[in-house]
Amino acid sequence: MSSSFGENIRLTLFGQSHSEAVGMTLDGIPAGERLDMDRLMRFLARRAPVGDVYSTARREPDIPEFLCGLTENIFCGAPVTAIIRNTDARPHDYEAFKNTPRPGHADYTAQMRYGGHNDRAGGGHLSGRLTAPLCIAGGICLQLLEKEGVEIISRIASIGAVSDNGELTASTAGKHFPVVDDTQGEKMLALIGDVKKNGNSVGGIIECAALGLPAGVGDPIFGGMENRIAQIIFGIPAVKGIEFGAGFSAAKMTGSENNDEFCLESGILKTKTNNCGGLLGGITNGMPLTFRVAVKPTPSIAVTQKSVDLTSGSETEIKVTGRHDACIVPRAVPCVEAAAAIAIYDALLGRRRG
Amino acid sequence: MSSSFGENIRLTLFGQSHSEAVGMTLDGIPAGERLDMDRLMRFLARRAPVGDVYSTARREPDIPEFLCGLTENIFCGAPVTAIIRNTDARPHDYEAFKNTPRPGHADYTAQMRYGGHNDRAGGGHLSGRLTAPLCIAGGICLQLLEKEGVEIISRIASIGAVSDNGELTASTAGKHFPVVDDTQGEKMLALIGDVKKNGNSVGGIIECAALGLPAGVGDPIFGGMENRIAQIIFGIPAVKGIEFGAGFSAAKMTGSENNDEFCLESGILKTKTNNCGGLLGGITNGMPLTFRVAVKPTPSIAVTQKSVDLTSGSETEIKVTGRHDACIVPRAVPCVEAAAAIAIYDALLGRRRG
Amino acid sequence: MSSSFGENIRLTLFGQSHSEAVGMTLDGIPAGERLDMDRLMRFLARRAPVGDVYSTARREPDIPEFLCGLTENIFCGAPVTAIIRNTDARPHDYEAFKNTPRPGHADYTAQMRYGGHNDRAGGGHLSGRLTAPLCIAGGICLQLLEKEGVEIISRIASIGAVSDNGELTASTAGKHFPVVDDTQGEKMLALIGDVKKNGNSVGGIIECAALGLPAGVGDPIFGGMENRIAQIIFGIPAVKGIEFGAGFSAAKMTGSENNDEFCLESGILKTKTNNCGGLLGGITNGMPLTFRVAVKPTPSIAVTQKSVDLTSGSETEIKVTGRHDACIVPRAVPCVEAAAAIAIYDALLGRRRG
Amino acid sequence: MSSSFGENIRLTLFGQSHSEAVGMTLDGIPAGERLDMDRLMRFLARRAPVGDVYSTARREPDIPEFLCGLTENIFCGAPVTAIIRNTDARPHDYEAFKNTPRPGHADYTAQMRYGGHNDRAGGGHLSGRLTAPLCIAGGICLQLLEKEGVEIISRIASIGAVSDNGELTASTAGKHFPVVDDTQGEKMLALIGDVKKNGNSVGGIIECAALGLPAGVGDPIFGGMENRIAQIIFGIPAVKGIEFGAGFSAAKMTGSENNDEFCLESGILKTKTNNCGGLLGGITNGMPLTFRVAVKPTPSIAVTQKSVDLTSGSETEIKVTGRHDACIVPRAVPCVEAAAAIAIYDALLGRRRG
Repeated sequence: MSSSFGENIRLTLFGQSHSEAVGMTLDGIPAGERLDMDRLMRFLARRAPVGDVYSTARREPDIPEFLCGLTENIFCGAPVTAIIRNTDARPHDYEAFKNTPRPGHADYTAQMRYGGHNDRAGGGHLSGRLTAPLCIAGGICLQLLEKEGVEIISRIASIGAVSDNGELTASTAGKHFPVVDDTQGEKMLALIGDVKKNGNSVGGIIECAALGLPAGVGDPIFGGMENRIAQIIFGIPAVKGIEFGAGFSAAKMTGSENNDEFCLESGILKTKTNNCGGLLGGITNGMPLTFRVAVKPTPSIAVTQKSVDLTSGSETEIKVTGRHDACIVPRAVPCVEAAAAIAIYDALLGRRRG
Repeated sequence: MSSSFGENIRLTLFGQSHSEAVGMTLDGIPAGERLDMDRLMRFLARRAPVGDVYSTARREPDIPEFLCGLTENIFCGAPVTAIIRNTDARPHDYEAFKNTPRPGHADYTAQMRYGGHNDRAGGGHLSGRLTAPLCIAGGICLQLLEKEGVEIISRIASIGAVSDNGELTASTAGKHFPVVDDTQGEKMLALIGDVKKNGNSVGGIIECAALGLPAGVGDPIFGGMENRIAQIIFGIPAVKGIEFGAGFSAAKMTGSENNDEFCLESGILKTKTNNCGGLLGGITNGMPLTFRVAVKPTPSIAVTQKSVDLTSGSETEIKVTGRHDACIVPRAVPCVEAAAAIAIYDALLGRRRG
Repeated sequence: MSSSFGENIRLTLFGQSHSEAVGMTLDGIPAGERLDMDRLMRFLARRAPVGDVYSTARREPDIPEFLCGLTENIFCGAPVTAIIRNTDARPHDYEAFKNTPRPGHADYTAQMRYGGHNDRAGGGHLSGRLTAPLCIAGGICLQLLEKEGVEIISRIASIGAVSDNGELTASTAGKHFPVVDDTQGEKMLALIGDVKKNGNSVGGIIECAALGLPAGVGDPIFGGMENRIAQIIFGIPAVKGIEFGAGFSAAKMTGSENNDEFCLESGILKTKTNNCGGLLGGITNGMPLTFRVAVKPTPSIAVTQKSVDLTSGSETEIKVTGRHDACIVPRAVPCVEAAAAIAIYDALLGRRRG
Repeated sequence: MSSSFGENIRLTLFGQSHSEAVGMTLDGIPAGERLDMDRLMRFLARRAPVGDVYSTARREPDIPEFLCGLTENIFCGAPVTAIIRNTDARPHDYEAFKNTPRPGHADYTAQMRYGGHNDRAGGGHLSGRLTAPLCIAGGICLQLLEKEGVEIISRIASIGAVSDNGELTASTAGKHFPVVDDTQGEKMLALIGDVKKNGNSVGGIIECAALGLPAGVGDPIFGGMENRIAQIIFGIPAVKGIEFGAGFSAAKMTGSENNDEFCLESGILKTKTNNCGGLLGGITNGMPLTFRVAVKPTPSIAVTQKSVDLTSGSETEIKVTGRHDACIVPRAVPCVEAAAAIAIYDALLGRRRG
């Protein structure tokens, strides 16, 4: 089913933007591991920042309630289910778009997919709100990965035409606005402020890496790490592209430029460069697993756009008001980490099986 | 399992580069449809061109033998299995690399994944040879899609720094070297000839589109068309990135630039632009579904590269001889079409279910 | 994952006997169908009868809260999640058995499965309490099946050595204690009263049939109706056997006795007998799909039994007190109907796919 | 898909009774294990005995050809595919039944399932012939289980009304006609000879046990050992029932009779009886996992039976000639062992994952 992901653990997301609750079930977590609940809360808070220039005005504390699967914060082997109540739901904000699909949103496609019976309010099950339970599952997997010596790091590589400088390192880990070069970060924030003033929005690129992965994780053909990570990352709304290592740049290189030559460092096999993003044949080689994700600008903009009135069958105009992010890239960063953590932990468990 | 793909149809690939045979099983094809075998053969021939500057010298006719699932070329509802014998297998070509992994290849990662028990010859199960049975399955799905009014088209968007001009249209369909602007195609071929002379290789980008898809195909979150297509496309060796619609370019745009406004054309809802690649919320909107795939340069190059002797644990050098493509992009084009056709047909069948 | 079932719809059960809640997610229900909530409540009430001789003294209203997937009782296509709070949880009732496994219960096996980290209270995730969310899903599928003209009927075929008389028909549908021959039903209730007085329990057999199924539902080999129904039915705790049609009796017959000869009734193909239980090759033939399920006696008995103290590693004795059913067969009847409905509706949806 | 089974290993069966070949792909076998090919051949020979009273006259050596997945008889981690050519196919034997379904066969149901496009010859994909590749996979798993200390044993518990005596032990392992009491075995053979003389057939019951399984194998709810074993066992044509431990007899017992009390034997936890068949909550308890399978009489009988001519829509008679077993129970014994081995090895691998 399309709202589930995973082979060795199985994540199921449920809920709509304005239903009673959104939530997730995560099955297959090995019994006996302890969950650091405070740390999970801090991770979830990264997805729902308050008072930033780029944030929606929708205010919900997003405190998950764990219904099962934990006994005194220790995983008991049963499926873990956690829910978040939609306390600030305002379904009537969306009445206006009922028959006039918003450009860039899934209004029209969902209507065609579900014969008009879909929950239209706020994108329903296709809403970015579903990344909240995704982050619960991801926050759990991040903690479990850390026990295996694996760390996921990430940064905002660009917002619009403004790029970060330098290489992605763990230095961005604690940052509120995760860039390597804070001067560039300021420029990005200024750009977001500008587009917001105009009722517009802007996209960006997120770079992510998994450090500490052993060599030999991943499976052939359709179960390679690229396949798995891509499958889950495109589950984050607004993602329109993904590339691993040098990615699209590799397409411009020759083999001698792109191949990563092997070397030894303190007796350990490494590669001198990492154009392959730590992946050959879909399987990890022990170098950082790196990838970049293209995030489109938020489709909700306070600019008049052309649309169609599906009832009358005539062209019309629409202006989306309501509470929306001028740039979702900063909030998408923990979502990308969460998704990567789920896919990587799933693959790592598979390796135990043989 | 990692060598299988699909939800409503199920493709399983098997075989190694130098085993007795490679093959595929495709389960779930509706009974009663006729297979045009000649057409399938012509499609498979596109993956194994003969005498071109970019091709390997490996010569195998690649005629599939259908073992079951067809009675007089009509699908009978049982799983369809077809195999291709590896008649020109030369496993001893690979003895030299047994303990010295080739840069850019999966030699080392497969060894780590399988504790050294993997079939090393020619990449084993991780070989590009497995795209032959992928193309059998894809060739079948292409025919079935056509009956549903869906056509898959594609082109070489770039080789190295040489890009094609114009927009992708069905005009490239019958072309031996599928580009819109043949002048650019000549430049690409010249570039391939150059790198080949130097024992080097070069990468490129493939652009693909599905025309004629109805709106409403695809499923939420992890079952969106992007998720499905990305998952299968990364099953083609050497693919390092994928983007849908404007993809990474969308990350540089504002919302008002990127949003595709709706309009009516002869009463049918369309969008004026197609930055979303025909996909909103992972579901088709009736416009062409478009995506681009980054293919890295063939890692096998006749240039001396640094590697490590795993037995002695010392750095060494390696030069890969044997039969290899200077550029696999042209041969990857039908593979991309095949993979797309499988993912799209799978999703289309799911739509019937409700 | 083991707490999920289904191919075209996907049911996931979560929760433990004494966790915050138990619940279910059902993904894949076609959008647009209306749920009759009152009727669902009446169905759920059948699983939790009050004041009967055979019932546990555990009192919980078992009112499900639907968190998502429904908008004004119409399925919106998104996953449907419903939870039931465990309001009458008494985890401390189970402290005594922590290191002394109860015979007939999964205490020991769960401990071995989860390295002692499982939730021991009341059987944890392996508890019969999980049949409450199973019945939510089943109650939904029963309503959807009815719209397809399919009815599920069942009866208590035997309790201990007391058997019902006559053939299973829809006449048992509304009965509080579903038997064809109420005199036999009285004897069954008397037997249950007797074993209860002795602190003992008793098993029984449930017979179930699906009427109105079209011919051609089910899939080959591992996807036959027997495979699907058996897989889900064994998810009901205490089930130890299943047989279809004549079942184990067929093993004593000759081919001429067991084969169901074909005939025509008003131009419709039927069989004169139904030893095959409506299934040939795992696929329905249009006759009633019939099966029988063996339910073991409740393992919780107020009789002193031998066990082992796992801490000291010595033999000991145990006497299970607490709130338990003297016979779970009556309460298992709606569970069997629910499970059958889920498996059959899942297969029926698959048929649409082709 | 319905022709596939397994969670940690994945078996796919393909082929029809009279297609070019039947075969299987088994994905997920850990790399590095050696296959004893001679032993596998001896196991397969048990399924296709020659010259016995109960055997079909169809003569095929059934030698599998391994196409991939093995390098010098060592599993290389890639999917294992083996095929068996249908050398003695005689599709024209079945022309007569094209429009007149044979009672007890899947002729009619398959026709309804596949809109008449199914391969009718010999049952097509629904044929007992598919148990040949099932036995290849099972023979592999039996060898792998043995390395884990697990042995699968079985016997013919009854043929028609003739039952074996005594308890199932490993003593039946090498026997050509596997019963504990050979005198009863002679009576069974005599009975088969009798029904054969009359052109009739007879059913029977197979008892099977897995010895040496550790406690803690199996998963909750739908992934219990009963669920898994039942799902695969019903993939053997002619199976109509399965019971674990005391099974249907448990339904007649009281809790104090049926519960297996715990005890210690040389410090190891055991149960005094084994009514639960080694399974509590679907998870192994370290005692023998036992189950019994009901096999219906071969539907192909040389007795005139009533059927319907689907073309003319009128009742008619049919007499099935051709090559058939008077009793398939003896040949089904290795199939049951094979199926059990696959399900159990699959579950055992899952346990490694945690």
